[in-house]
Amino acid sequence: MARTRTYLDWNATAPLRPEARAAMIAAMDVVGNPSSVHAEGRAATAVKEKARSQVAEAFGAQAADIVFTSGATEAAALALSGRGLHGAEVEHDAVHGWITPDLPVDSNGQVTVSDPAVSVLQSANSETGIVQDLPPGLALVDFTQSFGKLPVAFDWSGAQMALISAHKLGGPKGVGALVLKRGLDVQAQITGGGQEMGRRSGTENLIGIAGFGAAAEAAARDLADGVWEKVAEIRNILSLALERAANETIFVGNNENRLPNTICLVSPGWKGETQVMSMDLAGFAVSAGSACSSGKLRESRVLRAMGFDGVLSASALRVSIGPETTEEQALRFAETWGKAYAKARARAA
Amino acid sequence: MARTRTYLDWNATAPLRPEARAAMIAAMDVVGNPSSVHAEGRAATAVKEKARSQVAEAFGAQAADIVFTSGATEAAALALSGRGLHGAEVEHDAVHGWITPDLPVDSNGQVTVSDPAVSVLQSANSETGIVQDLPPGLALVDFTQSFGKLPVAFDWSGAQMALISAHKLGGPKGVGALVLKRGLDVQAQITGGGQEMGRRSGTENLIGIAGFGAAAEAAARDLADGVWEKVAEIRNILSLALERAANETIFVGNNENRLPNTICLVSPGWKGETQVMSMDLAGFAVSAGSACSSGKLRESRVLRAMGFDGVLSASALRVSIGPETTEEQALRFAETWGKAYAKARARAA
Repeated sequence: MARTRTYLDWNATAPLRPEARAAMIAAMDVVGNPSSVHAEGRAATAVKEKARSQVAEAFGAQAADIVFTSGATEAAALALSGRGLHGAEVEHDAVHGWITPDLPVDSNGQVTVSDPAVSVLQSANSETGIVQDLPPGLALVDFTQSFGKLPVAFDWSGAQMALISAHKLGGPKGVGALVLKRGLDVQAQITGGGQEMGRRSGTENLIGIAGFGAAAEAAARDLADGVWEKVAEIRNILSLALERAANETIFVGNNENRLPNTICLVSPGWKGETQVMSMDLAGFAVSAGSACSSGKLRESRVLRAMGFDGVLSASALRVSIGPETTEEQALRFAETWGKAYAKARARAA
Repeated sequence: MARTRTYLDWNATAPLRPEARAAMIAAMDVVGNPSSVHAEGRAATAVKEKARSQVAEAFGAQAADIVFTSGATEAAALALSGRGLHGAEVEHDAVHGWITPDLPVDSNGQVTVSDPAVSVLQSANSETGIVQDLPPGLALVDFTQSFGKLPVAFDWSGAQMALISAHKLGGPKGVGALVLKRGLDVQAQITGGGQEMGRRSGTENLIGIAGFGAAAEAAARDLADGVWEKVAEIRNILSLALERAANETIFVGNNENRLPNTICLVSPGWKGETQVMSMDLAGFAVSAGSACSSGKLRESRVLRAMGFDGVLSASALRVSIGPETTEEQALRFAETWGKAYAKARARAA
């Protein structure tokens, strides 16, 4: 690894917050199994329920609505398997596999929902950052990318179900939740000990859950403190610097309501995977698509749905920054990328 | 919580090993998503693959055979859902829900398997500690309780699939694995990003997986060092002391091949849940059944299957010790329990 690295792939996963780290280390000393009735078991349950309250509070939900899972992907399977719901091609792989992807997407990335009660919609897209207007009564909203970056709240969304993830907001990887509107239930897929009110069995990832709670609380505090407005300022500075460096590059969703930290840029004919490797060698971590599929080196289904052709959809780069990203880092990236862009253009000419 | 606590519920969950703690804290500094191709992503992958090798080595398997899950319960669902396999009433809830429980169990807790290829069998029972002889070619073996306490090895077992769990051997709760014989595959239930070779999607619980790897390695070292022979000595001292205190109590599986740390004692008419609460107040954590069901206060399905009646099956106590348990703690427990037993007998008389 290069001596100095700059991490600009926060939508893939965010660094662990110090609050999450501290909560996880504290939870390491909790010996009991939350299912045990003795004092050690009750202490473990207390850790879990504290985290549940923290997540609920940060997400504008009730603690009883939160079903902890091993991540948003498992939560999607739990919520969507066998349901036959509708959605759009811009949904994340974890959702896309369970839906009929027939909802129209316009060239700005906006999805039109005809029947919310049988539809799934993402709050924000991981690749482009484009934010959707959420009609009330959606069967499920995927808040994975927006929770922690935008002021979202489950109770205000009017959705029946929601997906959230810890590692996108500074909690640990491998923890998430399905959030259920009061009175709604789901058919458990992982059965056994009956944990999580019978909705999801298995001894709980107590250390991870503790980290999720602490991270959610810290993320809500950051949002209230305007941290992400400063992130947006640096993002905008970076975007302008990139635009100056590359006059043929398309900045996707620039005029849309977007996540404050995301830039998706399409440089025709310069493959996203090539850009990622080039930037990696230069010390910058960026992505050519959504995190999960970024190892697969293919064109973006999201951009295809927005009307980009195959060449353009394979020429996308995602830069996603976070509260730790400095203006200096952003400008250094723009300079490095601009030089590589010029070289690639020269080679293509 | 009482000032001095003695934890005698290691089969429910074991304290986190220092090696696991250190590996987890180190993994907290690994920023990347294992699915990302850049240096940060590759560093995350390296952590995951190191842990996979550690688990494989400790379990006598190949690294490629290990599919990390959120625990043995998820691994059971992944392996068994829709398979229609057979098993016995003594299996853990996480397995029991997926099988036809028609294999005979004798009064010593031994299961007779007629057709291994369509049968599931536990290596050791969580409540009684009774160890099964494993016929070769079993469809699945649940090694959750034996892995780390007995010298077991997947490759030697001749099984097609195996379940293992981190937190039973000093790793974190919420991590486990399905182990698959070379060439075998399973239908993914959690789909999306295609992690774990497409068998189990979702961003990996990297910190937990790192802890699993380190704990498995340490557990294998302890086994080789004879640590569990010393545990068995203390268990036997404890068992004798309990026998002296309670002449009507039945010690289940005393003459069977058992886990080195487990005592299951049935005191007719003295409810297990009452014993657990009484011992809890006196500073001891013990269990009335398997960890997952211990909150549910019911008679033991395992003991029923062995021919115990309803009263006896509700009168069981499980004491499960570990390498940290001292002879002094064991004798103090025996004394405390013996006094409570005498009182309960006096009340019943």
